[in-house]
Amino acid sequence: MTGYQQTLKPFLWRAQNITPEREVVARTHEGMKRYTYADYGDRVGQLANALEAAGVETGDRVGTMCWNTDRHFETYFSVPNLGAQLHTINPLLPDGHIQHIVDDADDKLIFVDPSLAEKLASAYDPEAFESVEQFVIMGSEVPDLPLEPITDYESFIGDQSTSYEFPELDEEQPAGMCYTSGTTGMPKGVEYTHKMLHAHTMATMVPQALGIDNSDVVMPVVPMFHVNAWGMPFTAAAAGAKQVFPGPSPDPSDIARLIEEEGVTLAAGVPTVWLGLLEYVGENDVDLSSLDRVVIGGAAAPKALIEQYDELGVEVVHAWGMTEMSPVGTVANLKHDLKDAPKEQQFDVKSKQGLIVPGLEFKVVGDGGDEIDWNGEDFGELLVRGPWVTMEYFNRPAANEEDFDGSWLRTGDIVTVDTDGYIEIVDRADDVIKSGGEWISSQELENAIMAHDDVSEAAVIGVPHERWQERPVAMVVAPEGTDREQLSEELREMLLEEYPKWWVPDGFEFIDEIPKTATGKFSKKDLRELYEGEESELLDEDAPAEAAPEGED
Amino acid sequence: MTGYQQTLKPFLWRAQNITPEREVVARTHEGMKRYTYADYGDRVGQLANALEAAGVETGDRVGTMCWNTDRHFETYFSVPNLGAQLHTINPLLPDGHIQHIVDDADDKLIFVDPSLAEKLASAYDPEAFESVEQFVIMGSEVPDLPLEPITDYESFIGDQSTSYEFPELDEEQPAGMCYTSGTTGMPKGVEYTHKMLHAHTMATMVPQALGIDNSDVVMPVVPMFHVNAWGMPFTAAAAGAKQVFPGPSPDPSDIARLIEEEGVTLAAGVPTVWLGLLEYVGENDVDLSSLDRVVIGGAAAPKALIEQYDELGVEVVHAWGMTEMSPVGTVANLKHDLKDAPKEQQFDVKSKQGLIVPGLEFKVVGDGGDEIDWNGEDFGELLVRGPWVTMEYFNRPAANEEDFDGSWLRTGDIVTVDTDGYIEIVDRADDVIKSGGEWISSQELENAIMAHDDVSEAAVIGVPHERWQERPVAMVVAPEGTDREQLSEELREMLLEEYPKWWVPDGFEFIDEIPKTATGKFSKKDLRELYEGEESELLDEDAPAEAAPEGED
Repeated sequence: MTGYQQTLKPFLWRAQNITPEREVVARTHEGMKRYTYADYGDRVGQLANALEAAGVETGDRVGTMCWNTDRHFETYFSVPNLGAQLHTINPLLPDGHIQHIVDDADDKLIFVDPSLAEKLASAYDPEAFESVEQFVIMGSEVPDLPLEPITDYESFIGDQSTSYEFPELDEEQPAGMCYTSGTTGMPKGVEYTHKMLHAHTMATMVPQALGIDNSDVVMPVVPMFHVNAWGMPFTAAAAGAKQVFPGPSPDPSDIARLIEEEGVTLAAGVPTVWLGLLEYVGENDVDLSSLDRVVIGGAAAPKALIEQYDELGVEVVHAWGMTEMSPVGTVANLKHDLKDAPKEQQFDVKSKQGLIVPGLEFKVVGDGGDEIDWNGEDFGELLVRGPWVTMEYFNRPAANEEDFDGSWLRTGDIVTVDTDGYIEIVDRADDVIKSGGEWISSQELENAIMAHDDVSEAAVIGVPHERWQERPVAMVVAPEGTDREQLSEELREMLLEEYPKWWVPDGFEFIDEIPKTATGKFSKKDLRELYEGEESELLDEDAPAEAAPEGED
Repeated sequence: MTGYQQTLKPFLWRAQNITPEREVVARTHEGMKRYTYADYGDRVGQLANALEAAGVETGDRVGTMCWNTDRHFETYFSVPNLGAQLHTINPLLPDGHIQHIVDDADDKLIFVDPSLAEKLASAYDPEAFESVEQFVIMGSEVPDLPLEPITDYESFIGDQSTSYEFPELDEEQPAGMCYTSGTTGMPKGVEYTHKMLHAHTMATMVPQALGIDNSDVVMPVVPMFHVNAWGMPFTAAAAGAKQVFPGPSPDPSDIARLIEEEGVTLAAGVPTVWLGLLEYVGENDVDLSSLDRVVIGGAAAPKALIEQYDELGVEVVHAWGMTEMSPVGTVANLKHDLKDAPKEQQFDVKSKQGLIVPGLEFKVVGDGGDEIDWNGEDFGELLVRGPWVTMEYFNRPAANEEDFDGSWLRTGDIVTVDTDGYIEIVDRADDVIKSGGEWISSQELENAIMAHDDVSEAAVIGVPHERWQERPVAMVVAPEGTDREQLSEELREMLLEEYPKWWVPDGFEFIDEIPKTATGKFSKKDLRELYEGEESELLDEDAPAEAAPEGED
C-alpha cells in the first residue's frame, strides 16, 4: 500500500469527534433506544474488543441477519474498521440460499435479530454453517434454538474497554459483502472494499446525489441487510446527520410516528413503503412537516406517488442502483433549468431513474453493439463503471465472464437516455421482448395495464413465436367476478391508444398472483417456468396477424 | 494498477455529456467569451491533439502562467487527462523563484497570458528554462519577447480534431503541481495525483464542505495559478455548475458586473477581494441578489466582513486549506444546532477556520508532544491527513523529514479546537511567541491592535529576551502625524482589557509598511530579518518588569 488509504475510519472518527452530540435513535424489540455518536463510538470500540477476543482477525467474515437497529449499526463500523468483513444476510431468502451464502462466505460469527433467529435456525445446516464459531443474538434473551454456541449481544461486548486502536488498513481490504437476490440462480456475492465504500460515502453526500448534511435526520427504512441500507448509515455518520433506525418490520404507523417524534428530514425505502405510508396518512392525523424528501429506489417510483407526496410538501428523490454498485448509481434530481418548470414536467422527469452521480460513467449499448442515441426513445443495455462499482463477483468466474466487460458492469437493465441525460429503465435485459427484430418493453406494458382500475397486478412475458421470434403475453390479476373477456378487450383498446399495434400482447391470461422474488419484485423467471413448454397455448389465436413493427412486413 | 482508477476523466465526461448546455463564461483580453460545456469538451479535445502533436507524453509537465480564463480552464482537463501534469506557475513570485520552479519541474511547454508574458520574459533564463520546447501565448498576438519558439493558442490548437480518446490512466499518475509560495526559502513543489484531485473534487461538492450543485454559478476570483483556484474549476464541472472566469486582474467593478450579469451564486477569493467589493458596493448601485455565498480563504476572514456581507444577504463561507491539501481542509459551516442561534454567535463561529471536511482527519499536538484538549483555549500544531493531502514534497527530502510525520502533514499552523470541533488558527508555528514557557499568539495581538482606528497595519514578532526567552514587539503602521507615544499608550491599555499583562508587547515600533509575501500575506520572516541583530533595541525599557504568565514568577 502506498499513499493515503481510503477507508471507513475517518467517517467513524468524524461522527465521534466532530458531531459527538448528534443522536442515534432506534426502535427495537426492547423499546426505543437513544444515544449519541459519542456513546456510539464507545460501543463500537467495545464491540471491536469483543470481536478480537472472539478471535476475529483481518480478512474474517462476520455475518449479520438483523433489522435496522443501533446494534446492527454498531457492527457497521466495528467489523470493517477491524479489518474484517461485514456480510449482511437477507432473511427473506429461501433457506437453501442462506445455506449457500453462509457456506460461500465462510462466516465466522453471525449476529442475528431475535425475530429472525427462527428463520436462521430453519436455514441452519451443520455443513453449510461449519465455519460459524459463534452466534450472537441482538437481544437480551438467548432463544432455545439449534444455533450454538450462542450468546446475547450485551454479554458478548460485556465490560470490554470502549477504546480500541483500529489498525491502519489497505484500502483494497474488503469491508463489506452482500449477495444479490438474483432473479436467476443462486445469489452472487459482491464484495465492497474500504475504497469502494469510502467513495460511495463521499459521493452520496454530494447535492447531485442525495445531498446529506449535518442538519438532516436520516431514516433508512430500506433494510440494513440489503446493500448496507443503500449506504445511508455510513453517509449519515460522515455528514454528522442524526440517524433513526426503524427496527423490526416497521409498519406505516411506526414510520409515521418516528417521522413525527424524531423530526426525520430524509427517509429512504422501496415504493411499497411509501405507498403504505401514504394510505396511513390519508386515514390518520400525521404531521409530516419535518420530512423534506423521501428517497425511493429498489423499484421504479410511480409518477402518481411522486405527485401525491408533492401535495404533502415532500419531495420524492427517485434513485436507482444495484448491489454491484454499493448501490447508488443515478438520482432523478431536477436540472437547474427544470427548477421553475411546470410541476407536470417535473414529475415526468422525477419518474425517470435519473442522472448519473458525479464520479461514475455509463454507456448504453444497443442490440447491434453500438452506443445508442440519447433521444429518449432508443433502447439499449446500460453499462456503468466507477469507484464504487464492483468489477467482479466473489467466487463466480462464469458470472464474471458474462456480467462484466473490462471495467464495465453490464447492469442487465434496458434503458433510454433523453437529451438531458436522464436515464429511464424500460426493462430488464432478460425480460425485454424481441419481436420482429425490435424490442418491446415488458415493464412499460405492465405499467400501462396496471393503470386500469380493475387490474391489481400484471406481468408481461415474451413467449416464443415462429414468425416474430417472440410475442408478448400479459398475466393479469383481477378481482374475482371480473368479466375477463371484457377486461381483455378494454386493455387491448387502452394499449392501442398509446402503443403501436405490434406492442399489444397476443394474449391476456388471468392468474391469482404474480410470483415474487425475495425482495418483492415480480419474478418473471418463475412465471416463465410456470408455463414452460406450454407457451404456445398462451397466444390468442384471434390476435391480429400483422403483429409486426411499423414499417416492416 | 488494479481495480477502477480514480481520475479526473469522469468529471470532464459528465460536464460534456450530462450538462452540455451549461455555460462557461470568461472575461478576457479579447472581451467577454461564452460557450457551453459541449463546446468546452470539443476545445479540450483539440488541445489534447495539439499537445500530442507537440510531443507531450505521459509524465511530461506543462506549465501555465495565466489568469482565470476559458483557455486556462481548457488546460485544466486536457493536460491531466492526457497523462501529463499541469504545473500552474504563480506570476507574483520573484524571478529567481520562477527560474527555480521551471527548472525544478522541467516544464516542456509553458502557456502564458498576454499580460504576464513580460513577467515570464523577465524571469527567463536559458539554463533554468532549458526543458521548455514551446511557449504558447493565451492571446491572438505573439509578443516580441525572448520566449522562443512561441505561438498563439488558436494557432496551436489550429484545426485539430475535437475528439480525442484519452488513455486509461493509473490513479497515482500525477495530474497537477503547484509550488507553495513559502514564507521561508525557495518554493516547494506539491504534486497532485489524479486520485488526490478526484477525491478533492468529490469532497468539495458535499454540503459539509462547499455544497456545489448544478444550479450554482461559480466564480473563482482566487487565481487559477494558485492551487487550481482551490479546485473550483474541477468541482464546478463535476457538479455541472455554470462557471464564470473573471480574467486578468479583475477589479471590484469587474467582479460586481460579472455577479450581476452572469447571476453568480458562489464566488471565492481572499479577504481583500471581498473588502474591495464591499467598498465598491457601498459607493455604487450593484445588484448582488443572485449571490448566495462567498467562500473566503487564503487568510482569515475578519468578523466585520462576515457581518457586512450578512447585511447584504450574502453568506460568508470561511474556509481554510493549504497548497499541500489540494487545498480545502476546513469549512466554517454552522452545525445543525447553530442554525437558529443569535447572529452574533453565528458570526463568532464563522470567524473560525471551521470544521474538518468529511474524509479528512486531524490532530493537534501541543508543545510537549501530547494532543491538546478541545476546549477552545489550549494551543497546538495542527496535523492533517486524508485522500487529498500530500505525503511528500517534490525533490525535497529535507523538507519531507521536517514537515511530515508518517501519513500526517504538519501544517505549521498553531490552532485551538473548541468543544464543537471548530478549528481556529491562532498563529503560525514560526510566529508564535514563546514567553516564559507559554505561547502567545502573534496573530491575535495583531488583530487586536488593528482594531484601533488609527492603525492601518500591524505585525507582532517575538524578539529574544534573556529572562523570558522571547517577548512580543509590535510593528505598527499609522497615518503621518499620529502622536505615536499616545497611540502606544492607548494600544497598551486596549490590550490589557482583553489579555493578560504578559501578552502585552514590550515595544511598539512605527514603520511605513509591513513587508508582504507573493500571495499578499505579512512576511514576518522579512520583518525579523530587517531587525536581525538589533532586536534588543525594540524592547521598551519602560515595559513592565513582571512580563510573566499568570501564576508564574
